[in-house]
Amino acid sequence: MKSNRNINYGLYLVSDRDVLDGRDFIRSLEEAILGGVTLIQLREKNATSSEFYSLAVKVKELASKYNIPLIINDRIDIALAVDADGVHVGQDDMPANVVRDILGKDKIVGVSTATLEEALKATEDGADYIGVGALFPTDTKTDTRIVTLDQLKNIKENISIPVVGIGGINENNIKSVSDTGIDGVAIVSAILGKEDIREAAVKLYNDFARK
Amino acid sequence: MKSNRNINYGLYLVSDRDVLDGRDFIRSLEEAILGGVTLIQLREKNATSSEFYSLAVKVKELASKYNIPLIINDRIDIALAVDADGVHVGQDDMPANVVRDILGKDKIVGVSTATLEEALKATEDGADYIGVGALFPTDTKTDTRIVTLDQLKNIKENISIPVVGIGGINENNIKSVSDTGIDGVAIVSAILGKEDIREAAVKLYNDFARK
Ligand code: NI
Repeated sequence: MKSNRNINYGLYLVSDRDVLDGRDFIRSLEEAILGGVTLIQLREKNATSSEFYSLAVKVKELASKYNIPLIINDRIDIALAVDADGVHVGQDDMPANVVRDILGKDKIVGVSTATLEEALKATEDGADYIGVGALFPTDTKTDTRIVTLDQLKNIKENISIPVVGIGGINENNIKSVSDTGIDGVAIVSAILGKEDIREAAVKLYNDFARK
Repeated sequence: MKSNRNINYGLYLVSDRDVLDGRDFIRSLEEAILGGVTLIQLREKNATSSEFYSLAVKVKELASKYNIPLIINDRIDIALAVDADGVHVGQDDMPANVVRDILGKDKIVGVSTATLEEALKATEDGADYIGVGALFPTDTKTDTRIVTLDQLKNIKENISIPVVGIGGINENNIKSVSDTGIDGVAIVSAILGKEDIREAAVKLYNDFARK
């Protein structure tokens, strides 16, 4: 999993321990993988570096077991420490070109964008893929810029690298997102917040990733 | 400044933008350097990665101008991004041996400790120096474990690497700290919180670093 080519961004799971409501983190991620998740982004916004590192070690072990790529949100050092497959940065994180310099060409670099201008900049900076959103209002992310499906489609048509939609995507709206022709959907609550995590992933996988 | 040998830990400045009360950050650090500070640790606990990186670029430029080592608190990735001289980690940050693996042998690794056991562990993990404290109660750090001067002296006598005292050190107590025989004092408010930053550094330098 050292190459950033042929990555399946289809059903892209972004972790959030809060929505698990006390359920075991690793077991929940494993259920999601068994349901069809194709890639995991470990996202921790309030953990100490020690906690983030310890979690990353465990998630890396799980991801390796299932041969699923692991992307670390924001922290290049955590990604290096656990030999993750890549890093995802937002507009408030380190510049993508600096991330690329630190990680080298064999790791995946993803960038959150909300406009065509940001998407073009990310491509220029060496990103392997972009996240685009928020597509729908959501509680799980404080970044509240809304990108319409028409804007998403326009970005997809003008960008050469894979495009992953993010923000409030769920079983009710996923088909409208899939219709834009993008490469993947990033999901948080619509998988990890569900009582049956595996079943939720299977349903979303069937509605999008297997299109 | 690529070697971690012959580092002067004498007057070790830890940054804190809050105590500057609106004064220019880089200009204040420059005043502290002109007053005799021998090393700067850039510490940012609430900044975004983007802000931290931008500040680090500026502080690196300043530190290079005066040939002062720059240490980054917690974030190995920020240190790599700006080619800082090293990283300082606390007990809640990444394990020191992992930091050493990522940074390689030529960068400085410092570890915060509060007991002889932690100090010995840090040495074993490959630390170049340890911080020991908090020596006195302080508002600038939430870590409130208190290390007495007798405990500090005991740690210094049992550790082969340089020992830097930290926590509430100021013009009134610095001589008692100096008497323990340690290699450096880490200062925040007693330099950056003073109206005349350069003068405060000069006085502390005379009371400790030139001992
Ligand atoms: Ni891999």
